[in-house]
Amino acid sequence: MMLAAVSVSAQQRNNNVPSYADAVEDFKPNVTNQPGRQYPMVNSQGAVRVQLRAPGATSVQLDLGRRYEMVKDERGVWTGTSAPQDVGFHYYQLIVDGTAMPDPGTVSFFGAGRWGSGIEIPSKDMDFWQVKNVPQGAVEEKYYWSKATESMRHCYVYLPNEYGKNPNKKYPVLYLQHGNAENEYGWSVQGHAGQIMDNLIAEKKAVPFIIVMDYGQGQNIHLKGQYAPQQPQQGQQGGRGGSNDAFQVVLMTDIIPFIEKEYRVIADAQHRGMAGLSMGGGQTRRITLANPTTFAYVGMFSGGTISVEDVNGAEGFKKTNKLVFMSSGSKENPRVMEAAENLKKNGMNAVGYISEGTAHEWHTWRRSLYEFAQLIFK
Amino acid sequence: MMLAAVSVSAQQRNNNVPSYADAVEDFKPNVTNQPGRQYPMVNSQGAVRVQLRAPGATSVQLDLGRRYEMVKDERGVWTGTSAPQDVGFHYYQLIVDGTAMPDPGTVSFFGAGRWGSGIEIPSKDMDFWQVKNVPQGAVEEKYYWSKATESMRHCYVYLPNEYGKNPNKKYPVLYLQHGNAENEYGWSVQGHAGQIMDNLIAEKKAVPFIIVMDYGQGQNIHLKGQYAPQQPQQGQQGGRGGSNDAFQVVLMTDIIPFIEKEYRVIADAQHRGMAGLSMGGGQTRRITLANPTTFAYVGMFSGGTISVEDVNGAEGFKKTNKLVFMSSGSKENPRVMEAAENLKKNGMNAVGYISEGTAHEWHTWRRSLYEFAQLIFK
Repeated sequence: MMLAAVSVSAQQRNNNVPSYADAVEDFKPNVTNQPGRQYPMVNSQGAVRVQLRAPGATSVQLDLGRRYEMVKDERGVWTGTSAPQDVGFHYYQLIVDGTAMPDPGTVSFFGAGRWGSGIEIPSKDMDFWQVKNVPQGAVEEKYYWSKATESMRHCYVYLPNEYGKNPNKKYPVLYLQHGNAENEYGWSVQGHAGQIMDNLIAEKKAVPFIIVMDYGQGQNIHLKGQYAPQQPQQGQQGGRGGSNDAFQVVLMTDIIPFIEKEYRVIADAQHRGMAGLSMGGGQTRRITLANPTTFAYVGMFSGGTISVEDVNGAEGFKKTNKLVFMSSGSKENPRVMEAAENLKKNGMNAVGYISEGTAHEWHTWRRSLYEFAQLIFK
Repeated sequence: MMLAAVSVSAQQRNNNVPSYADAVEDFKPNVTNQPGRQYPMVNSQGAVRVQLRAPGATSVQLDLGRRYEMVKDERGVWTGTSAPQDVGFHYYQLIVDGTAMPDPGTVSFFGAGRWGSGIEIPSKDMDFWQVKNVPQGAVEEKYYWSKATESMRHCYVYLPNEYGKNPNKKYPVLYLQHGNAENEYGWSVQGHAGQIMDNLIAEKKAVPFIIVMDYGQGQNIHLKGQYAPQQPQQGQQGGRGGSNDAFQVVLMTDIIPFIEKEYRVIADAQHRGMAGLSMGGGQTRRITLANPTTFAYVGMFSGGTISVEDVNGAEGFKKTNKLVFMSSGSKENPRVMEAAENLKKNGMNAVGYISEGTAHEWHTWRRSLYEFAQLIFK
């Protein structure tokens, strides 16, 4: 779930609904709460309950996309309860007398274009992304020089546990991208990519590989010099006109060469994959089709489909490709299964995956990574 | 500067002061602002200016320890300006109709016992901790199993750039601790330890070494089984009674063995150091004196002093020790120089360092690490 904007319109204020009245009273503290905080809470229905001490306020709402009116008690503590939410991770905020604010009860996540509050609605299959006592990989924070932007950029790199212990072994690499209005923190923080991989590798369900998570919001990527267009396009002054295009330049010019220089990597297409969620899935589609002999493994999580026509239009794609993986939450009503069937009929290895009971949010994408990671580099 | 508590007392509300009236109008956006945000801002005097759109609020304050009354304009936007602040990093919050909230303009930092707003008051010597186009190390996020707490714990590990490129070389290790009500993120996020080290190593002012940054707030460290006391002490049920004691157990039982197993480390006292800021400096003092032959390098940043009597009471400390470094901001009025002189008269290598013009905050500690790192493992 994405909050499209933080500002409060009069129309939105008029669409507020009362606190959910039918909540089962088995609320527990949210797993992403600040140390020692009881609220926000979640119950077995997936309803969210928040509290805020604000004796001076005249109205407070819980904003989870829909806005729930909170009620003040005699101590000045406001309490509000949402209707049951989809399982997985949701960005939210509080509205105090019309002003949007983060909930001081939770830690901060980057989504909806800003660092703000997040809440986890537990699912029955949370186990696969928990921190367990298995050999632990590392998520490295790395800065690197970008020729395309003439600036230092910032990424996260997952290294499997054995990476440090096999100094002569080289590894495959997956380039894994976030969604719209998210950033390079998303996959390891909200997505728990490191835990998913550590647990899969410990169970020998996935081979060890490196994951690179970078920032792909292209309208904020300012290409310079030879990489920038002669004329600004689509109103992007000094940019290359369009987010996917700018990120593609940075990925091909800077990120992949940097990773293949800095880490022990098998630097060929058969050991290189790209995947992404939502906008990042769309970027994966465009970038892998535009560079058809660069990536053998392609994953689009809630990020559209690749058609036979797409493949036919990208010379070398079919021969290079080992897997096209297309997934979606069942609540998104996608056509990924049909698209995968069409590619299979065309002689390709394609997999469609429906995440049962989930929507356009992180639990769909955690599950998608869990499935995709078991299929690649084998 | 630490905020001792988030709740609002009536006494504090009565101590509010007006917005600072003598600010020079050369405000620039704070360097830790959220993407695209203009406010908060800082001017050349170190005054902080914040804005919040809150048309429905009847009072808003900027809380930087002292509380500054903000003023509402006709659009409902509140603006407030603080008096000039000490250079360096400050935790703060906004108070809206008596309710403490994070400033949505900044990213979130862990200090004052919670994730909340932070602002950087620029100093003239900020260059040494900036991200530069030099060979970059990595800050790794690592989980590990703790026998002492019977749980997975979480730390950050700085690896110098060359670590990945010299698979047969082993490195010294510095264990580096945060202050009271901070956590294991502090040294790499607020402290920029990774940038300080990368820049020093690039200039050949420091030798490459590993830094381990863990969570040391001992009253939140729950020792289990053989590591827990028979009788709870000092009211800590199931704890070992006192923060330094609990962290010492975890450091000696879990952290050091884990690091020496997981990384290529020279596992002897001459290549092992401990340092910390404020509370972490006090822990460094107690732990290194209690384990007198374990650490050759000792750093206390705004964290007290070690006396000749301390050394004489810790058998083997003097013989093992290569450096006792004690630092303080000049605004803290410390006696670190005298303490260092006394140790030197006792035949030890001791250094006192005064950070000119700084107080009990992160710029003092960044400078302290910058100085200390140049003196150790050589």
